[in-house]
Amino acid sequence: MKVTAEICVIPMGAGVSVAEYVAACGPILEAAGLNPELHAYGTNVEGEWDDVFAAFKECHQTIHDLGAPRVFTTIKVGTRTDREQTNADKIAAVRGGSPK
Amino acid sequence: MKVTAEICVIPMGAGVSVAEYVAACGPILEAAGLNPELHAYGTNVEGEWDDVFAAFKECHQTIHDLGAPRVFTTIKVGTRTDREQTNADKIAAVRGGSPK
Amino acid sequence: MKVTAEICVIPMGAGVSVAEYVAACGPILEAAGLNPELHAYGTNVEGEWDDVFAAFKECHQTIHDLGAPRVFTTIKVGTRTDREQTNADKIAAVRGGSPK
Amino acid sequence: MKVTAEICVIPMGAGVSVAEYVAACGPILEAAGLNPELHAYGTNVEGEWDDVFAAFKECHQTIHDLGAPRVFTTIKVGTRTDREQTNADKIAAVRGGSPK
Repeated sequence: MKVTAEICVIPMGAGVSVAEYVAACGPILEAAGLNPELHAYGTNVEGEWDDVFAAFKECHQTIHDLGAPRVFTTIKVGTRTDREQTNADKIAAVRGGSPK
Repeated sequence: MKVTAEICVIPMGAGVSVAEYVAACGPILEAAGLNPELHAYGTNVEGEWDDVFAAFKECHQTIHDLGAPRVFTTIKVGTRTDREQTNADKIAAVRGGSPK
Repeated sequence: MKVTAEICVIPMGAGVSVAEYVAACGPILEAAGLNPELHAYGTNVEGEWDDVFAAFKECHQTIHDLGAPRVFTTIKVGTRTDREQTNADKIAAVRGGSPK
Repeated sequence: MKVTAEICVIPMGAGVSVAEYVAACGPILEAAGLNPELHAYGTNVEGEWDDVFAAFKECHQTIHDLGAPRVFTTIKVGTRTDREQTNADKIAAVRGGSPK
């Protein structure tokens, strides 16, 4: 099952500035072939359900290994059976739908 | 890796009232042994990472099988290495922390 | 505009256990007449849009006043024009929709 | 109180493809001076708490006016008292924190 998804990880008990921990996820998502797109409130990815959630699990484990005792994550995930849709398709659809 | 998590599924292209689709998830989460607690904005569960996300995948597949062409889901997931914590523990901690 | 909503506050830079901060929100939501229902991944409320978000703002301010330098919050909010719906209605609909 | 935030609106009861409705939010967020950045799972904004949530309310009202009977929205919102931080700052911090 193909998915598009967004992950936003919040390391807790690791101080007020957590970019160093968050940054550890990018290479994991990249290595998994999930086409990650970083934005200010998370990272968007796309791929097979199992690959996406295996990579998200590895993000949690890596952030713990870096020293954060707690990780709180929010995920959005979408699946559809009517047609394939990439993250780029979604952006293009909204841009194309803008009222003139 | 033990997790506590919340799932909130939104069937799309399936009309304005979607409770019938959402209700299909409860038995899946129950059968997976995830101790589901339904509330008005989702269902809270707890268990091993792989078991939780396998069940969430089954929820998507089942909602598609029931006829919804698209499913948008939000998930919260928490892990911690300092100690074990159940969903019941979390509620008790907040209740206990209320200012007198 | 009537809304049902869920708020989940995550104090950051305030240590690994944050229940004391989270607990400060309950009385604010209660005093605002939003019918709060605490669960393990947030608190569900209902009321007018402006009242709900004024109370959520007060939660942020109060958690900062208690000493947390950063607050990350996730909110779900729903509105509908076809009919009124409370949080209790939503739970009843899902429970009623369970496959027999 | 300054915030950075993400909004992701899901029109319900409006068919399977909802880009036309979602697109109506961009001009509202732009007109409110919130520096919107569209991505595949929402739009990131920044500004004063009251301005941000007034604009989000206008998004709901506009999507209803366009014909969607129900709108489900997820929001992330962050505030901090230790220093100012824009959405651009957040992205730069994560990019700068990548392991070499």
